[in-house]
Amino acid sequence: MPALNPAFADIVELLIAVPDGDDKAVEAVRQRDSQLTKPPGSLGKLEELVEFLARWQHRAKPRLGNPMVTIFAGNHGVTDQGVSAFPREVTAQMVANFTNGGAAISQICALHEINLRVFELALELPTGDITRESALDDNMCAATIAYGMEAVAGKPDLICLGEMGIGNTTIAAAIYAALYGGTGADWVGRGTGVDDAGLGRKIDAVDRALALHREGIEHPLDILARLGGREVAAMLGAIVAARHQKVPVIIDGYVATAAAAIAHAVNPAAINHCLFAHVSAEGRHALVLEKMGQTGLLDLGMRLGEGSGAALAAVMAKTALHLHENMATFESAGVSGNA
Amino acid sequence: MPALNPAFADIVELLIAVPDGDDKAVEAVRQRDSQLTKPPGSLGKLEELVEFLARWQHRAKPRLGNPMVTIFAGNHGVTDQGVSAFPREVTAQMVANFTNGGAAISQICALHEINLRVFELALELPTGDITRESALDDNMCAATIAYGMEAVAGKPDLICLGEMGIGNTTIAAAIYAALYGGTGADWVGRGTGVDDAGLGRKIDAVDRALALHREGIEHPLDILARLGGREVAAMLGAIVAARHQKVPVIIDGYVATAAAAIAHAVNPAAINHCLFAHVSAEGRHALVLEKMGQTGLLDLGMRLGEGSGAALAAVMAKTALHLHENMATFESAGVSGNA
Repeated sequence: MPALNPAFADIVELLIAVPDGDDKAVEAVRQRDSQLTKPPGSLGKLEELVEFLARWQHRAKPRLGNPMVTIFAGNHGVTDQGVSAFPREVTAQMVANFTNGGAAISQICALHEINLRVFELALELPTGDITRESALDDNMCAATIAYGMEAVAGKPDLICLGEMGIGNTTIAAAIYAALYGGTGADWVGRGTGVDDAGLGRKIDAVDRALALHREGIEHPLDILARLGGREVAAMLGAIVAARHQKVPVIIDGYVATAAAAIAHAVNPAAINHCLFAHVSAEGRHALVLEKMGQTGLLDLGMRLGEGSGAALAAVMAKTALHLHENMATFESAGVSGNA
Repeated sequence: MPALNPAFADIVELLIAVPDGDDKAVEAVRQRDSQLTKPPGSLGKLEELVEFLARWQHRAKPRLGNPMVTIFAGNHGVTDQGVSAFPREVTAQMVANFTNGGAAISQICALHEINLRVFELALELPTGDITRESALDDNMCAATIAYGMEAVAGKPDLICLGEMGIGNTTIAAAIYAALYGGTGADWVGRGTGVDDAGLGRKIDAVDRALALHREGIEHPLDILARLGGREVAAMLGAIVAARHQKVPVIIDGYVATAAAAIAHAVNPAAINHCLFAHVSAEGRHALVLEKMGQTGLLDLGMRLGEGSGAALAAVMAKTALHLHENMATFESAGVSGNA
């Protein structure tokens, strides 16, 4: 088996040498929270969301004036295996739809004043068909990770990671099988809505990909290069860069979680600054979260991708911070405290 | 045992003679939904929320320009038993806080443009201490139900039912024990945050109330009068009036659900137009929902009351409807459809 390609040395180093969160900022948030006109703890996960922002922004007064959803779009050679209900050109068509305001994520962002950026990742160059070859060579994989790091360059207060790519639920299932064991049937879902025959083709494609690549996998980044996609690699880069640049991350659903799972496999602490937006209805997403010791904030039966679940979680975070900033204190409101 | 008091005849009739939902409106929503640029079903419960609005507004194009959170506030004689961590005067202080914009619900509504109305229910006249007497006599209970019906008079597009009342988680636990069996220990939670001694007093108060009133309970409305509170009675009125006036309802948490549980006990179909916002962390709220065959939309560990969970669910409904109205269709966006 090959050793870790030097191309991956930098990203591995960044995944291992992650900075800790800011406990003092969290303490400041808790101090203010204890004065607000509500019983302690009664806002549940809304309180935890504010602490999460403070810890990973390293700010005693966290901010959300500039939250961002990023969508990474890629195409996949594995669509040659008939794994999707939609043709490959839909990836580019949906990218246009994001920009033109017609997609679900466009409208969630418009309604709730969240910035939206779309990163097209060489849509005209689908990755290799993983049933026949590696998705990406190591150098291209590393370059795509590096490209994804640029997503946090504008220093948003929060970054939501989403994706678009016909065929990428097959890719994500292959990554999960390689990381956690099992076969295609254990991880694959219906994606955009394939029928039973399509589901069979997806399972078969994952199983053939696993058989082809198993011997060449020594490190989680080998899984990414051989079985992944450009959008997964770019999201991994965004995750790592966000940690080092003090930007909290919200991870969307089934496919976006694959990027976090690669990071987690290298170093579980590398995703401590990531909040998992929701339990997707796609495939075995709940099991993936469990494998990482995570839970989803929401569970709405969604399986759209494109950052839609992450954006809804961001709405909850915005609401939580708005309450933290604007609620009255017991003293200011003249409300009697806990007896 | 006494027969049903004639005072309750009208409300029972309204609970039994409930109009059906509008299946044609739902069909119209599904028809549009199938054209939107997303895989069918991929927005999960967001799609169901739009159908819910259409069915109970009886509108093929549901509206949410005028959503409303209503908070019913009442005081409770049972606080004499030391069941709360806060003194009774906090009810009125929090009513002022709602109006002045300092409460969590005030700020959720402000951020998300939801109307907020507060109904004070004779705060200067706490209900009877249920460990010693009935909370309300039947006529006062019926009058309070009728008063609650007025909450939908302005014909909001959606009404969220919340409450405030020191002592009312004890009241709600007593109602659940009377409806579903068991003792205080099976249903009581820590409310505003009582310590172990306070929890013991709550459990004991519920058990003594059950022993005192058990023989006098023949009908669910007897439970409401003997063990309930003004805010629970008023929310029951709002639930019934909303159904007849084609206003969908979102029920908040542990205490608000008690009003729905009374309605459900009279006629399970009487709450079909009610959506349960969330699973509260208070007491055995999850079990109450299960008893009625319901699930909560959200599960955020919240237990604040004051309509806060319901308002968050309303934000989800607003978002869902915004997507339904504003997303592009496959045709308008030039996106290839399902193969």
